[in-house]
Amino acid sequence: MHNETFTLGIDIGGTNTVLGLVSWNGTCVEKTRFFTQECPSVEDFKMKLVAGISQLSQKNGAARNISGIGIAAPAARHIDGTIQSPANLQWGTIDIVRLLKPYYNVPVVLTNDSNAAALGEMKFGLARGMKNFVVITMGTGLGAGIVVDGRLLYGENGVAGELGHMTIEPGGRHCGCKRQGCVETYVSASGIRRTVFELLADSTEDSELRKISFNDLSAETIYELARNEDPVAVQAFNFTGRILGRVLSNTVAVFDPEAIILSGGLMHAGRLLLEPTTKAYHENVLKLHKKKAVILQSQLKDGEAAILGASSLIGDGGAVSENIPASPTMFQET
Amino acid sequence: MHNETFTLGIDIGGTNTVLGLVSWNGTCVEKTRFFTQECPSVEDFKMKLVAGISQLSQKNGAARNISGIGIAAPAARHIDGTIQSPANLQWGTIDIVRLLKPYYNVPVVLTNDSNAAALGEMKFGLARGMKNFVVITMGTGLGAGIVVDGRLLYGENGVAGELGHMTIEPGGRHCGCKRQGCVETYVSASGIRRTVFELLADSTEDSELRKISFNDLSAETIYELARNEDPVAVQAFNFTGRILGRVLSNTVAVFDPEAIILSGGLMHAGRLLLEPTTKAYHENVLKLHKKKAVILQSQLKDGEAAILGASSLIGDGGAVSENIPASPTMFQET
Repeated sequence: MHNETFTLGIDIGGTNTVLGLVSWNGTCVEKTRFFTQECPSVEDFKMKLVAGISQLSQKNGAARNISGIGIAAPAARHIDGTIQSPANLQWGTIDIVRLLKPYYNVPVVLTNDSNAAALGEMKFGLARGMKNFVVITMGTGLGAGIVVDGRLLYGENGVAGELGHMTIEPGGRHCGCKRQGCVETYVSASGIRRTVFELLADSTEDSELRKISFNDLSAETIYELARNEDPVAVQAFNFTGRILGRVLSNTVAVFDPEAIILSGGLMHAGRLLLEPTTKAYHENVLKLHKKKAVILQSQLKDGEAAILGASSLIGDGGAVSENIPASPTMFQET
Repeated sequence: MHNETFTLGIDIGGTNTVLGLVSWNGTCVEKTRFFTQECPSVEDFKMKLVAGISQLSQKNGAARNISGIGIAAPAARHIDGTIQSPANLQWGTIDIVRLLKPYYNVPVVLTNDSNAAALGEMKFGLARGMKNFVVITMGTGLGAGIVVDGRLLYGENGVAGELGHMTIEPGGRHCGCKRQGCVETYVSASGIRRTVFELLADSTEDSELRKISFNDLSAETIYELARNEDPVAVQAFNFTGRILGRVLSNTVAVFDPEAIILSGGLMHAGRLLLEPTTKAYHENVLKLHKKKAVILQSQLKDGEAAILGASSLIGDGGAVSENIPASPTMFQET
């Protein structure tokens, strides 16, 4: 087993940072995670990453063969390896590839988290064989990985696909990006929390949610309560789905994709979100599109799409790519 | 001169259909036009097209060498040569290539009018040398030709780029597509007419526009009055610009293009529309885009972008392409 080669996929999210050890066939064989927001500084964040990588790159004290590290992060620019002051991280621009590079003598590559999720779906998920599709990831924020004619849409400066920052409600909720009415202020784990508080303010309906403070409320709790038919929690998912359905119909008008795949933490809610979304999508989608894009829920294991996609940047599905020596360098920290 | 070879570019618009004779170097040497909406039937429309083609394909009674016909139309599908019941034409789906093919023994090709405009800008206009840009055409409706990585965005079924049918005002104005709040119900020649009537209803301000009926009002008149500082006409352009600016900032968030080029009849207004648009764009555009796309006004002669782009489908800028015999067939009606 010591000769088996792995890649490391890292998914930096607004809430969690997840590191995964990926085998040649796209299986995430081991994972570790830490809370992104508990790191007070970039230095601290870097050291937590290094510790996590250290943990995954060893087994029973022996070093594993690691052919490279693929990183997925919000607002990441693959062109220069930096993370550009994303709304949900507090450290400004991070030169992530240059920060980690000195520690490892294997390739370290970066891509946008949603682009990584799209790659993961294209290589190992529902988008296998598709040439035109959109993956929407809904975690702390909302991002999109868009594939046009079999290729990721990067744009002129590598920052295309910011569906989460399209204005869906003019003059609406304030966003971390300093604008108002962005999609992700409604359709994301933090967006649905805001929706719950709006609903609690608007209605007189009784709800378990009235017992929870804003800071203590998680999307997971809203989901659990909606499953138990808490009326406000159910309404929150219906409201979110109505907005998401409109976003999807706009996305179809612009991209005419074969499918839109929904993924990310918010999709834990499954049909509670999928049903109102699909209903609103069909009500809103342009009729001239005879073959309408199908709306699918990602079938990849929770949180693994971006890890698999990021790790696939290193080689083909975790295998050694042309850019890496046939006999990969032993993975070591310096 | 009889040996010179031309291509024919046809731009089918909701108001006018314009036919142009295009020389090898991308010059539109002769044009003819008719009112699209004055054709009661597809048969009548076809006969008007044939008459126009006839007119352009002769000079002093002698037949010109025509290497092919490129057609641009709203909601056109290049895949099967049909026009798919566009909101602004009243005849349902039109099998346009198959209708014209029997008359001519040269290639007849079709593309979306906005895609044709994008090709025109890429070959002969402001987008020369650009790889990522968006052309927005504002006539009776609003369309977009989107170029990603040097290639037109077609989508899975060839109907991508319908920016005009993104919902910009939820629950807003009714659209010909049977939905509400579509961009083109605000930002188009017909949209600004609706805006004028909304402003006349809302305010008590005196205006020359109060003397004109809805049916008699044209975007051109609004433009003329705005130039003479009619307050309602000026407000109408400011309102239109504010919405267009938001559309542009959304477009930049999604595509991260190098430039957005504005074209079509509504752009006759020039700075009257461009200034409020650019202002709203800069207020709304996502700050994380360090290099922001520039907003430009097409410099191609009025209405010629789509004609040039459509005709360029036949060969390279009107020259004979590989698909056409080196000695092009004499262009004749059967």
